[in-house]
Amino acid sequence: MIETDIIIIGAGPVGLFTVFEAGLLKLRCHLIDSLPQPGGQCSEIYPKKPIYDIPGFPSVLAGELIDNLMEQAAPFKPGFTLGEAAMSIDKKEDGKFVVTTVKGTKHEAPIVMIAGGLGVFEPRKPPISNIADFEDKGIEYIIKDPEFYRGKRCVIAGGGDSALDWAIFLAEKKIAKEVVLVHRSASFRGHLDSVQKVIDMAGNGQINLITEAEVVGVEGNGSLERVKIQHNTQGEMTRETDHFIPLFGLKPSLGPIADWGVEIEKNAIKVNTLDYSTNIPGIYAIGDVNTYENKLKLILCGFHEGTLAVQSAFARIHPDKKNILKYTTVNGVQGF
Amino acid sequence: MIETDIIIIGAGPVGLFTVFEAGLLKLRCHLIDSLPQPGGQCSEIYPKKPIYDIPGFPSVLAGELIDNLMEQAAPFKPGFTLGEAAMSIDKKEDGKFVVTTVKGTKHEAPIVMIAGGLGVFEPRKPPISNIADFEDKGIEYIIKDPEFYRGKRCVIAGGGDSALDWAIFLAEKKIAKEVVLVHRSASFRGHLDSVQKVIDMAGNGQINLITEAEVVGVEGNGSLERVKIQHNTQGEMTRETDHFIPLFGLKPSLGPIADWGVEIEKNAIKVNTLDYSTNIPGIYAIGDVNTYENKLKLILCGFHEGTLAVQSAFARIHPDKKNILKYTTVNGVQGF
Repeated sequence: MIETDIIIIGAGPVGLFTVFEAGLLKLRCHLIDSLPQPGGQCSEIYPKKPIYDIPGFPSVLAGELIDNLMEQAAPFKPGFTLGEAAMSIDKKEDGKFVVTTVKGTKHEAPIVMIAGGLGVFEPRKPPISNIADFEDKGIEYIIKDPEFYRGKRCVIAGGGDSALDWAIFLAEKKIAKEVVLVHRSASFRGHLDSVQKVIDMAGNGQINLITEAEVVGVEGNGSLERVKIQHNTQGEMTRETDHFIPLFGLKPSLGPIADWGVEIEKNAIKVNTLDYSTNIPGIYAIGDVNTYENKLKLILCGFHEGTLAVQSAFARIHPDKKNILKYTTVNGVQGF
Repeated sequence: MIETDIIIIGAGPVGLFTVFEAGLLKLRCHLIDSLPQPGGQCSEIYPKKPIYDIPGFPSVLAGELIDNLMEQAAPFKPGFTLGEAAMSIDKKEDGKFVVTTVKGTKHEAPIVMIAGGLGVFEPRKPPISNIADFEDKGIEYIIKDPEFYRGKRCVIAGGGDSALDWAIFLAEKKIAKEVVLVHRSASFRGHLDSVQKVIDMAGNGQINLITEAEVVGVEGNGSLERVKIQHNTQGEMTRETDHFIPLFGLKPSLGPIADWGVEIEKNAIKVNTLDYSTNIPGIYAIGDVNTYENKLKLILCGFHEGTLAVQSAFARIHPDKKNILKYTTVNGVQGF
């Protein structure tokens, strides 16, 4: 059991800065993140992209910002449980919380701050009732390795760049034996040259393009054998296939957080702006994961939210101590 | 008449960052400050002091932070009226505000944001009813040039370093003809060695030290001629003097802002945390100048407040336009 003052779920920029602000109040923090390194999306998705709206930085690379925040938090020696998603929060009889990760690592503290950002990114799935029966048995939402489809019949669904580009790639390189692209509209959302190329390849038979149609059913004995396609005017048709690959994009999802009993609104955690507390006393939500009237999903807003939240956490942990704001310009930073 | 979208009163760090956030929404700003350069206290009082609690900066000199914020605001070409305190706000019939400075410079905009920090620093004055009659006629609250007191009789009041150090200086250098130090307690708040020196100098007659006493009256014909001193046990005495110099320290004061009709609480402007608006629609207060439940007087909180306030200002200026948050990581910064 890892014990601390504040368990921070999410080691993105807001979680990291909260370590610093908690440290100024002599509170210790331990961060949990499903990603293998601190920094959240800044490190995972766009470490080399410049951000222009962090106050005091006309431009800063996302990865550089994380390095700075790690250095700023360092005097307060945060603990990290990385590469493990937080799965559950349980409240003990003494009022403390126990947070357990997917690997079973347990953490205990009187305060939990959820700084989970936009959550996990999950593929958008078509509304087919039995679709889960064939996931990883012929149905994939992400193409990880195109070689996996060599010599196979593939039905791809979608109208964006991902669907277009993979249909072109699998057909042009002659990887798949057959490529069917199903899209519910007659127009596409992708780049114009990709759209033109798909139309050309449909014209010369390299891609079987079915527009104004949707895959509405999946069938098979153990693994996928065929899909049912509903065409707007031509009615239903059945198509034999080895793979059905819906590429409808990713959507952020709260993941397990949604089941923790905190009040959810618009796929985010509702908080009281007095201290960014949730409906569960002792659990706070800061940064992009929370919502309130006029909320802006900006890193700089999360910095403010975390700062106010640790003041409230201090009052919960030490109901008898008066906390007087000390300015770092006067006192400097005394680490642990 | 200087016309703009947002008049920002106070060119400290919060006012400067607000220029950037307003610029992202294509709103122009003009800043007014009584100081001769932008940066507020960061530039005026502690440019060479490190600040440790700006997110992403393990340490940054206050002056450096201001340079960075000026660079970040630069694409949006803010206007400046410097070295002129804003004295009044008037509302025109068309709903716009006119802000006039002490020098008569007029600025017009539909939105005013007060980012005045702790306001102006004013000397604490003793509660003597007619004291204003002798200000600059024998009574000074700040010693600007000690030579001004050469050959004069001086009564200094106070128990802190400023009172102790000036009493020592004026007496030891034989600048003043006579130095009387009046302090209401028997103990002093200053450095121990200064306290010891004053006691030594009182012992050998260089300083006339009167403790457990207060100056309670000032008299003279046109200019100061004598002070009345009330001693805790010995009753009232009169002392002929050329100067009375109460050195009770400085206190932050809202100054003229207090008369603008915005709701004041605890020497700060009360705001609605939904958008940091004041009780006057169109006037906002951001940064150290405002107050609300759980307010922290931190620069990073002001950054958040200014950011939310400009969103609200945008909605007031363009009630028909929908503002969709655009991320600078995706779109970059397009200046004016």
